[in-house]
Amino acid sequence: MFKEVLQDVVDRTEGGVAGLLMGFDGIPVDQYVRESAGAPVDVETVGMEFSVILKEIRKAADLLEAGTAEEVSVRAERLTTVLRVINEEYFVALTLLPHGNFGKARFLLRTASSKLASELT
Amino acid sequence: MFKEVLQDVVDRTEGGVAGLLMGFDGIPVDQYVRESAGAPVDVETVGMEFSVILKEIRKAADLLEAGTAEEVSVRAERLTTVLRVINEEYFVALTLLPHGNFGKARFLLRTASSKLASELT
Repeated sequence: MFKEVLQDVVDRTEGGVAGLLMGFDGIPVDQYVRESAGAPVDVETVGMEFSVILKEIRKAADLLEAGTAEEVSVRAERLTTVLRVINEEYFVALTLLPHGNFGKARFLLRTASSKLASELT
Repeated sequence: MFKEVLQDVVDRTEGGVAGLLMGFDGIPVDQYVRESAGAPVDVETVGMEFSVILKEIRKAADLLEAGTAEEVSVRAERLTTVLRVINEEYFVALTLLPHGNFGKARFLLRTASSKLASELT
C-alpha cells in the first residue's frame, strides 16, 4: 500500500519522476518510478545520499533551535528533490523535473506523509 | 553594498528574519538581521552549519548527475531557511518565520543572487 501512495504523488505531480519511502538508516521501504518520465533515476541512490544529508540537517536544526526539520528541498540543474520527514525513523522523497510543479509536489507530499505515518505505526 | 542587497530581500519578504552572504568555507561576508523580527537568530551559526550541509548536497547532486545544486530550502518548526548558491565560492541565505512568504523569499533570493554574483567578481 506504500507504493500506491508514492505512485499517487508522483503521477499527480506535473514533472514527477520518482517517489521513495526510506528509513533514516538508508534502507528503502518502497519506491515508485514513473515509466514515462524520460529521466531514469536511481532512486535508491538518491535516497541513500539524502538520508545522510537529512540526518545532518536535523541535527543542525536542533542545534539552531529552529525546531524539528520537517521538509527539505534541493533544486539542481536537472532534478529537484523534495524530502519530508514522516517520523523519527522514516522520510518520503519525491524527485521531479526542473520545470515540474514544485508547489504541488510539496502539497501532495505533505498529505502523503500523514497517510504513510498512520500506516507505518 | 552587500548589506543593502540582503536587507532588501529580508525586508521585502513577509516574515523575513535574517539574510547572510557567506563563503562555502563558513566565513561570512555580510549579514543583516531585521530588528523587529521577534525571533533572535544567530545568523552566523546558521550559516556555518548550512555551509557544511550545502557542500555535501552539492557533492551528492554531482554524484547523482542531477547537475549543479542551485537552491536548498529547509523548513523546520520555528524557522525556514532558503539557501542559494551564487558561484563556486559563495552562497546567500534567507531565514524566515514559518508563516512567512516562502515563494517570495525564493524569488527575491534568485534576483539578489545575480546581483551579488556580479559584485563578487
